[in-house]
Amino acid sequence: MEYSKHMNNIKASEIREILKLTQKPNIISFAGGLPAPELFPTEEMKEIVQDIMDSDGQSALQYSTTAGYSPLREEISKMMKKKNIGNINQDNILITSGSQQGLNFSGKIFLNKDDIVLVESPSYLGAINAFRANEGKFIEIETDNNGMIMSDLEEKIKNNENVKMIYVIPDFQNPSGKTWSLERRKKLIEIGNKYDLPIIEDNPYGELRYEGKAIDPIKAFDTEDRVIYLGTFSKTFCPGLRIGWVLASDEIVNKYNLVKQGADLHTSSLAQREIYKFLTNYDFEAHIQKLIEVYKKRRDVMLDSMGKYFPDNIKYTIPEGGLFTWVVLPEYINTKEMMKEAVNEGVAYVPGESFYPSGTTKNAMRLNFSNMNEAKIVKGIEVLGNVINKNIK
Amino acid sequence: MEYSKHMNNIKASEIREILKLTQKPNIISFAGGLPAPELFPTEEMKEIVQDIMDSDGQSALQYSTTAGYSPLREEISKMMKKKNIGNINQDNILITSGSQQGLNFSGKIFLNKDDIVLVESPSYLGAINAFRANEGKFIEIETDNNGMIMSDLEEKIKNNENVKMIYVIPDFQNPSGKTWSLERRKKLIEIGNKYDLPIIEDNPYGELRYEGKAIDPIKAFDTEDRVIYLGTFSKTFCPGLRIGWVLASDEIVNKYNLVKQGADLHTSSLAQREIYKFLTNYDFEAHIQKLIEVYKKRRDVMLDSMGKYFPDNIKYTIPEGGLFTWVVLPEYINTKEMMKEAVNEGVAYVPGESFYPSGTTKNAMRLNFSNMNEAKIVKGIEVLGNVINKNIK
Repeated sequence: MEYSKHMNNIKASEIREILKLTQKPNIISFAGGLPAPELFPTEEMKEIVQDIMDSDGQSALQYSTTAGYSPLREEISKMMKKKNIGNINQDNILITSGSQQGLNFSGKIFLNKDDIVLVESPSYLGAINAFRANEGKFIEIETDNNGMIMSDLEEKIKNNENVKMIYVIPDFQNPSGKTWSLERRKKLIEIGNKYDLPIIEDNPYGELRYEGKAIDPIKAFDTEDRVIYLGTFSKTFCPGLRIGWVLASDEIVNKYNLVKQGADLHTSSLAQREIYKFLTNYDFEAHIQKLIEVYKKRRDVMLDSMGKYFPDNIKYTIPEGGLFTWVVLPEYINTKEMMKEAVNEGVAYVPGESFYPSGTTKNAMRLNFSNMNEAKIVKGIEVLGNVINKNIK
Repeated sequence: MEYSKHMNNIKASEIREILKLTQKPNIISFAGGLPAPELFPTEEMKEIVQDIMDSDGQSALQYSTTAGYSPLREEISKMMKKKNIGNINQDNILITSGSQQGLNFSGKIFLNKDDIVLVESPSYLGAINAFRANEGKFIEIETDNNGMIMSDLEEKIKNNENVKMIYVIPDFQNPSGKTWSLERRKKLIEIGNKYDLPIIEDNPYGELRYEGKAIDPIKAFDTEDRVIYLGTFSKTFCPGLRIGWVLASDEIVNKYNLVKQGADLHTSSLAQREIYKFLTNYDFEAHIQKLIEVYKKRRDVMLDSMGKYFPDNIKYTIPEGGLFTWVVLPEYINTKEMMKEAVNEGVAYVPGESFYPSGTTKNAMRLNFSNMNEAKIVKGIEVLGNVINKNIK
C-alpha cells in the first residue's frame, strides 16, 4: 500500500507532541497557547444549553448549512464592523472549526506544489504546518518591533518566482508577542496591491490588549478585497468548541465555502448556537475585561520573575497583549536540547526552532503566561532561570 | 490574485445546493440524508451538559489532543469489537468531524493527482466530492444486489494504472439502499490483498437494520490491516455535533492523526464528552431501537405509497435498512430537469446523476424516508408520482 506524496510534507506538530509531555502531573507548562480554564463560563454554559434545547434543540442537533449559523455570522459581522472593517455583511463570513481550519483552507485555495508563502520570521507553527500540508514553501521576512520590514518583503517578492501569499499575525504575534505599527499595516496593503498578492491576516489575540491603544486590523485598510481575515473564539470564549471564522470578499469566501463542503460539511450546529447565546444573552465585553485583568497580572508576574531569575542580557518581548513572550538566549544554547532538562526539572516551553520554517534559529523559546496561575508562574520561571543559568557559559 | 489549481476540481455539492432550495417552508423533502429531528435526545442533552459542566467543565471547553477524548475512543473500540473487528484498542481510533472529514483525509493520504479511486456505481456524492478535492479520478464498478461485481472490479484494477484505493459502503448503500453479501465482503478482502490496495469502508447506517440479519463489516475480515473503517454518530445520535471516527491499523491511523493536526487540531472537546455521556449514562441500544421502529414504518409507508402512486414498471430498491431508496425511471427522463417541476409542486429529491462520477446515468433519483413523517411521505410520494406520470411517454 502506498501513501500519497503529500504525506512526505506532513509531520507531527512539535507543540502538540510537547503538549503530550506536559500532561504529566505537576509540570508547570508555559508551552501551549492555552487559555486559563478557570475563567471558562461553565455555569453560563449550563443555562445556555438549557435555553437552546428548549427553544431550538432540534435544529441545534441537525445538519445545517456550510456557511454557518446565520445569527452568529450576523453578530460576527457587527464585531468586525466595530474594528472599522467596512462594506461587509454576514455573507462575507464562513464559520470554521477554529482558525486552524481557516489556515489549512488558505493553503489549499492559494498554493500549488512548491508555491511560496511569505511569513514573519518567526511565525506561528500551526500555520507553517497547515501550509506545508498543502505543499507550500516558505520565505521568512525579517521583522523588527513594528512588524515585517517592508524593504525586505518587497525585495523577496521581486526576487522569487511563485510567491502566492503573505501570512501575518499583526496583533501580539505568535510567537514573538510583537505588534505591527499602523504605518506597516498600511504599507502592507500597498505592497499587496502592487504585486497582486492575497494577505492572510490571522488575529486570534487582538481583543486581549493589556496596555496601549488598539490599532485597526490590516483588513480595515484593504482597498482591493485581498485580505482574508481569520478570527476565533478560542481565546475570548473557549477553544474546546472549535469555533473560528473567515472574513473575505464574496468571491473569496465562496472558495472557502466550497473547500469546507468537501472537508467536513459544516461546523457543529450546537457549538455555533452556544457561542451566539453567550454573545447575545451575556456580557461578552465584561467577560473579555475579566480575561484582560487576569492575563495582564500573569504577564506582569512573568516579566517581573524573568527580571529576577533569568541571567542578565537575555532579551525578551514585553508584549502589549496576547498570550506569549519570546525569549532569546545566547546563540550557543539550543533550546530544543535544553527542553529535556527543563521538563526533568518540571517546567515546559516551546523551543523557538519550530517557529522558523528554515529551522535555523535554535536559541529562542516561547513562553505562555495565560494558562498557569501567578504562583506557578513565579515558581516555573525560577526553575527555568536555574536551567538557563546552568547552560550559560 | 491567483487561486491554486486544486480549485478547478472543487465544485459545489449538488445535495447541499438542493438542501438550500428545500429550506423554503412546506416543501416535502426526500432530498437530504437527514435524521428525524423529533427523535433527537434534547432533554437528555440538558442533563448531559449539566453533568459535564459540573464534573469536567474546564477540560470540556479546553484544547485537547488530536486523537480525541480517550474514554469515548474506548467506548467506540468496544462497539467495534462487538462487530467482530478484532485485535484493536482505542489507539486505533481517531475522532473526526463527522465521516466527511474521514473521507477527505482518505483522499489526502492515498491520492496523488489523477490517481484512481474505484467506487460502486452509483456511489456517495460527498465521498466523490472529497476525493475530487484531493485531485482523484474515478472508475465506477458495476454492482448488483449483492455489492460490487468482483470480476468487473478485478478487471478494472488490472487494466488501469494508478489505482490507489477502493471505496465502498457495504450496508444500506448511499444512494442505492443495497447491502453487500457476506461472500462479496470476503472476496473484496482477497482482491485488496492480491493487489495491495487500501479499502475505505464507510458505514454510517449499519446500526439501522429493519429486517434480515446483520452481516459483519468488511473490516472484520481484514487479514492485512488494509481496511480503513469510517463510523459516525450522525445517524444514531445526531449530526449537528459532527462526531465521527476512523478505525485503522496503528500505522495508518497515525497518518490520519497527522493530517488532522494540520486540518483543525482536534474535534470539539465538549461534543465528544456529550456523546460519551449519552453512550454510558443512557440506554443507547434502546435509542437505536426507537429509531429503527420509526424509520422502518416510514420506509414501509414510502414503499407502499410508491406502489400506489408511481407508474407501473418503475424499479426501486427495497432497502433492508438505512435512510434511502433508489428509484430508476425510464431512460428518457432526466431527473435533474424534472427536479424543478417537482420542487414547484412542493416535493424534493436528489437527482441520481450526482452519484455517478461519470455523470452518465440521468434517469435515477434518491429518496430519503427518515426525515419526513408518515403523512408527509404519503402526500409527497403522491405529488412525486403525479410529476413522474406527466413525464412518462
